[in-house]
Amino acid sequence: MPLSVAEIGSFHVGGRIVRIEGLPPVEVAFTPDTALLRMPQDGDFDAFQMYVQYVKLDRPKTSVPLLLWHGGSLTGACWESTPDGRPGWQSIFLRAGWNVYVSDAVERGRASWARSPEIYTSSPLFRSKQEARALFRIDGSQFPIENFDQLTKSLVPRWATNDEPTSAAYDELLRRLGRSVIVAHSQGAAFALRAALQRPGALDAIVAVEPSAVPRVSGNELSGVRNVRHLFVWGDRLDAFWRPLAERSRAYHEELRACGVDSTFLELPKAGVAGNSHLAMLDRNSEAVAERVLEWLTRR
Amino acid sequence: MPLSVAEIGSFHVGGRIVRIEGLPPVEVAFTPDTALLRMPQDGDFDAFQMYVQYVKLDRPKTSVPLLLWHGGSLTGACWESTPDGRPGWQSIFLRAGWNVYVSDAVERGRASWARSPEIYTSSPLFRSKQEARALFRIDGSQFPIENFDQLTKSLVPRWATNDEPTSAAYDELLRRLGRSVIVAHSQGAAFALRAALQRPGALDAIVAVEPSAVPRVSGNELSGVRNVRHLFVWGDRLDAFWRPLAERSRAYHEELRACGVDSTFLELPKAGVAGNSHLAMLDRNSEAVAERVLEWLTRR
Repeated sequence: MPLSVAEIGSFHVGGRIVRIEGLPPVEVAFTPDTALLRMPQDGDFDAFQMYVQYVKLDRPKTSVPLLLWHGGSLTGACWESTPDGRPGWQSIFLRAGWNVYVSDAVERGRASWARSPEIYTSSPLFRSKQEARALFRIDGSQFPIENFDQLTKSLVPRWATNDEPTSAAYDELLRRLGRSVIVAHSQGAAFALRAALQRPGALDAIVAVEPSAVPRVSGNELSGVRNVRHLFVWGDRLDAFWRPLAERSRAYHEELRACGVDSTFLELPKAGVAGNSHLAMLDRNSEAVAERVLEWLTRR
Repeated sequence: MPLSVAEIGSFHVGGRIVRIEGLPPVEVAFTPDTALLRMPQDGDFDAFQMYVQYVKLDRPKTSVPLLLWHGGSLTGACWESTPDGRPGWQSIFLRAGWNVYVSDAVERGRASWARSPEIYTSSPLFRSKQEARALFRIDGSQFPIENFDQLTKSLVPRWATNDEPTSAAYDELLRRLGRSVIVAHSQGAAFALRAALQRPGALDAIVAVEPSAVPRVSGNELSGVRNVRHLFVWGDRLDAFWRPLAERSRAYHEELRACGVDSTFLELPKAGVAGNSHLAMLDRNSEAVAERVLEWLTRR
């Protein structure tokens, strides 16, 4: 069935202008046809903005947009296709009737990145294929291992010192879009849970797939998110790294419920969906996981 | 009119694996919830791959895909929307009936980038807002200056030492897609003209919008591109930087014609399209420029 699309487009949001002064210019030959070009290093630079791409349907089932926020080392590309070339969650949620916004977080992909140490205060971190394979629980999982290269080609460098501006850019995005649903993965889910506390009126629901962190708040501090439904999704074969994060995630879910929040903690293996890696949206059973999310999102 | 879309997706193509050895690990706190994590810097890394996103129509007017290749400092996002939020050339060519492939070149956007000096042999170059404004001939042009920030937020760092692997990745893309039409801008157009010589059978036509370089070949060396139609497009108010490049471009066009190639040199001001900056696809009259390109593409 073809998808009836009204509009495809993108924009950048958030960030600020940083002035650099006192760096010497560099001389560069950009092409064989041009002489050495003197390129100033000083000037004004945009930094800490993010990139957002949208597909709007001709007849969405709801005016509330669905936002897909990626995790660490990844970009929005992780929602477009699986490594073995099947439709990604972007397509699945579009076909379910949502207008879908796929973003690249600050410093990742099309959001661009800035120089250090003048703007970013630390060095970029590069994740090797071996580390990705271990950290994402690839071996023995439902991940389509024969296309592992498609995953590792999509990995981007990251920094560990830009949480504040990244959170600010996400907040700016929510301010711009109004009431939204967020489906987020890992580091993106950590930002989504935080965003709900910053701007609770903006959100209908959050789906947090294996969040890498949860907010350190409790009791009255949670009153602002009383009307934001929460779904936590955890995959299979959690190891010494992920098990404690899943437990923190469960504790936060219990805290939310104690405050009257409609929160669900979905352990995929207990729900009959077995073998997921950390990257459920890329696994062979990505569609089955998306179906569980869709059931929950549309259940009332 | 809604667009009837069969499929949206993306993939990475090209590149190679580089092994890094002998770097000390770094200790990183990725989230407030996790202890310092020892992150090895050694291992295998993908490098020099590119990113390609496609939108396939339910009923394309031709099976030949149209590829949009961006210029220096930009990513594929420049084809999605104009800075003032109008539909970009991606949408215009989709609505004209093509399946459209938008790519991010090696080292840009979602293609990712690699560490230097171990993998890239030079340092990244950051373009200031001031330099972009001058180089792209923004002032007094049709560029929507009130949204200049949308342009500069989209600028990404670049290197000046990756032409060979970038060209190789584009070649790999053409090998994968088969017969194609390329619409390319600036540095992307330089790569497109080069790609035609490397893989002439793969191309129906090239539209080179203000190419930053042209191949240094002539006579018999051009026999391979005899069946590839060429369109060169140049904007308005060429300055001391762009005028010589436009002249080189014209000389190459004359050389192509002398070899029997169907080549057209379109000077927009002479064709009644006035005031374009270097970024015709982002200018207020971007649709008028696209129409000229479409007329040429479909003229027989």
